[in-house]
Amino acid sequence: MLFHHLSSGEVVEKSKTESTDERVGEFRKRLRIVDIKGGESEGCDRLGETLTVRGWVRTLRVQSSVTFIEVNDGSCLSNMQCVIDSDAEGYDQVESGLIATGASICVHGVVVPSQGKKQKIELKIHKLVTVGKSDTSFPIQKKKVTREFLRSKAHLRPRTNTFGAVARVRNALAYATHKFFQENGFVWISSPIITASDCEGAGEQFCVTTLIPSSKEAIDSPADAIPRTKNGLIDWSQDFFEKPAFLTVSGQLNAETYATALSDVYTFGPTFRAENSNTSRHLAEFWMIEPELAFADLNDDMACATAYLQYVDVVEKSFVRLTYTDAVELLLKSKKKFEFPVKWGCDLQSEHERYITEEAFCGCPDIKAFYMRQNDDGKTMNSTSIRRAFGVPHAGFGLGFERLVQFATGLDNIRDTIPFPRAPGSAEF
Amino acid sequence: MLFHHLSSGEVVEKSKTESTDERVGEFRKRLRIVDIKGGESEGCDRLGETLTVRGWVRTLRVQSSVTFIEVNDGSCLSNMQCVIDSDAEGYDQVESGLIATGASICVHGVVVPSQGKKQKIELKIHKLVTVGKSDTSFPIQKKKVTREFLRSKAHLRPRTNTFGAVARVRNALAYATHKFFQENGFVWISSPIITASDCEGAGEQFCVTTLIPSSKEAIDSPADAIPRTKNGLIDWSQDFFEKPAFLTVSGQLNAETYATALSDVYTFGPTFRAENSNTSRHLAEFWMIEPELAFADLNDDMACATAYLQYVDVVEKSFVRLTYTDAVELLLKSKKKFEFPVKWGCDLQSEHERYITEEAFCGCPDIKAFYMRQNDDGKTMNSTSIRRAFGVPHAGFGLGFERLVQFATGLDNIRDTIPFPRAPGSAEF
Repeated sequence: MLFHHLSSGEVVEKSKTESTDERVGEFRKRLRIVDIKGGESEGCDRLGETLTVRGWVRTLRVQSSVTFIEVNDGSCLSNMQCVIDSDAEGYDQVESGLIATGASICVHGVVVPSQGKKQKIELKIHKLVTVGKSDTSFPIQKKKVTREFLRSKAHLRPRTNTFGAVARVRNALAYATHKFFQENGFVWISSPIITASDCEGAGEQFCVTTLIPSSKEAIDSPADAIPRTKNGLIDWSQDFFEKPAFLTVSGQLNAETYATALSDVYTFGPTFRAENSNTSRHLAEFWMIEPELAFADLNDDMACATAYLQYVDVVEKSFVRLTYTDAVELLLKSKKKFEFPVKWGCDLQSEHERYITEEAFCGCPDIKAFYMRQNDDGKTMNSTSIRRAFGVPHAGFGLGFERLVQFATGLDNIRDTIPFPRAPGSAEF
Repeated sequence: MLFHHLSSGEVVEKSKTESTDERVGEFRKRLRIVDIKGGESEGCDRLGETLTVRGWVRTLRVQSSVTFIEVNDGSCLSNMQCVIDSDAEGYDQVESGLIATGASICVHGVVVPSQGKKQKIELKIHKLVTVGKSDTSFPIQKKKVTREFLRSKAHLRPRTNTFGAVARVRNALAYATHKFFQENGFVWISSPIITASDCEGAGEQFCVTTLIPSSKEAIDSPADAIPRTKNGLIDWSQDFFEKPAFLTVSGQLNAETYATALSDVYTFGPTFRAENSNTSRHLAEFWMIEPELAFADLNDDMACATAYLQYVDVVEKSFVRLTYTDAVELLLKSKKKFEFPVKWGCDLQSEHERYITEEAFCGCPDIKAFYMRQNDDGKTMNSTSIRRAFGVPHAGFGLGFERLVQFATGLDNIRDTIPFPRAPGSAEF
């Protein structure tokens, strides 16, 4: 286990050999703003309590007699309104301008009724401690900023209302996903990220290699340095895996392997597509949920998917089910002119999904983002050599986790649903 | 959502448009062997019940009057002993040799007391259905096989007692990890897998690129095809991310970013090292758990780690804590001759850890696999430009998940703790 500690950017090392018992108390969940304001009548049950809030200054309003500091600790959308007057310990930090948007503070005080209309309680500060001052260039001030701008500040965007909320929704959906499958007896399988298996092929893949020098040296690396065979081909025998290796596009085959031994399993891990799609609907790196059920057919499969979506609470009503073949038929029958012409075997595009959900089944709002398609599996995964040993009917589905987050949050751009989005030309932070 | 169904290797497509309500019943957790035999007195509470077991034939013993079929469904180590006589429906499948080790079967029958000493109950079969027959080349028969051999059959090893159990332990540890952090108010952050950030550098990295043709074509790819600039350097502007990109070695910096907005967060995702270490202790791809606590110091950090390890139930006693500096001092003082000489700044090797755990602290068995080291962070992660904006003391730790699985299972080789191990020259399945 590797421990680290940074005190406002600097490394601290203590140099003592000591047993746990001597130094460390019990690990306790810390009191958060969500615990305080999430209580009875927005925190009124805590009136009179003396407590400590740790968080970041969102805004500061200096008035003649008192100063209001809005503090957020990321546990919920709501800030804790903290009030300080000139008598309180640490008030000089307000006067000196140390307390500004973005500063990290600890406030110790008593819960009192708030005169304001926006909240029922506030914290009357006894003691204020600035733990870390705000950088003067802190770019997120109290004004509306675009999500495009925030994407360029990925390391700061979780401090905004929207991205803080997205992070919490994403977390809740991820945990509910694990809970659903665990409670139903599924075993989580970590499907591999790197694969040298040449039988996938659903989409463009990223190559994973050590033939190109690592890290900083790469940028100045001569193309000639790639090792070659006598025939001028890339010499894969010198690569890390001694053959071409790629980032996985799906864990389905791996899940199948385990389903045919453990009955019901699921993967929940990153998958990759190197498609040059610079759209609001595509990510080069995204998380997939892929359950696999042995001794199961399509009905069991769809029942599982429906139960899952109801459990994670993104749908309440029933689904319309449509096979890929029927969807294609429906689109052909429509006689509509699509930008991408429809024929059996083509990938369905947003315009096609829109027609199906908005026109063909306009009374059924729930299928929206969850267009169901029968996997044309025989074509995309030619892995009969491994499958032959399975010998059991099995079924499953694949769900892009970011699509689910998008569905739950209503965000336009899928890049806003994942902490550090990867897209063509973009792999920062 | 993409659905698929394979009936013993073939794709089945149904062609109906229908609403959920009409066709699909409630999704129910299926009855597993663990549910049957995990009950009161090893299943005696189910005596007389008629039920169905689905699973794989482990062994078959044909006796003069009856045949015993041991069935395993992956839900636990224990098999269900099923007994069939010549009157039962489907007995011809036993006679014809269809029922062999590895076959997938459904057995319907009644729970009766067992005469055998190994179990209290068994299933008297009324009806036997072979769902998938075993491949004649099924390589896992009833005999002891080495783990090395099984590593070459990664797609079949979960059907063995050992690897089935490892998969269940791994699953239990993963879920307990999520539960611990969720119950303590941490938010799960998916740290990115691909990173173009040039400030990591703790260990050798894999390059992620589309400059090399994807998948099958790669093997015959001429080295000349790598695009180059006028100066003969690799032309990164033509790569997917328009600059060199790598597989992450740690999510710590990403976790820090979110901790300074949401207070306490954790990552639990894959990380990578391209080190050419073909040992039983290294994986090229492994899962890391990296919590990050804002407003925290090393004591909070270690208290959290201790509480976590106690929660996931791999330790009961207390830890000895040792900083990296003290460990190095201890090793230097020992005057022992190590293969890898010790000086401050070196990586500690197994021989060093062994000395510390077995000789220096021989009364404290619990630190075994959990050697604690202060991160020499200022050196390995030179990211002050991003860190400047953090302005809050924070602490965390990194734990290799496979080390935890190894600790819990006692397996010698770390490659046996992960479903599809990646190591130099090895990225199969």
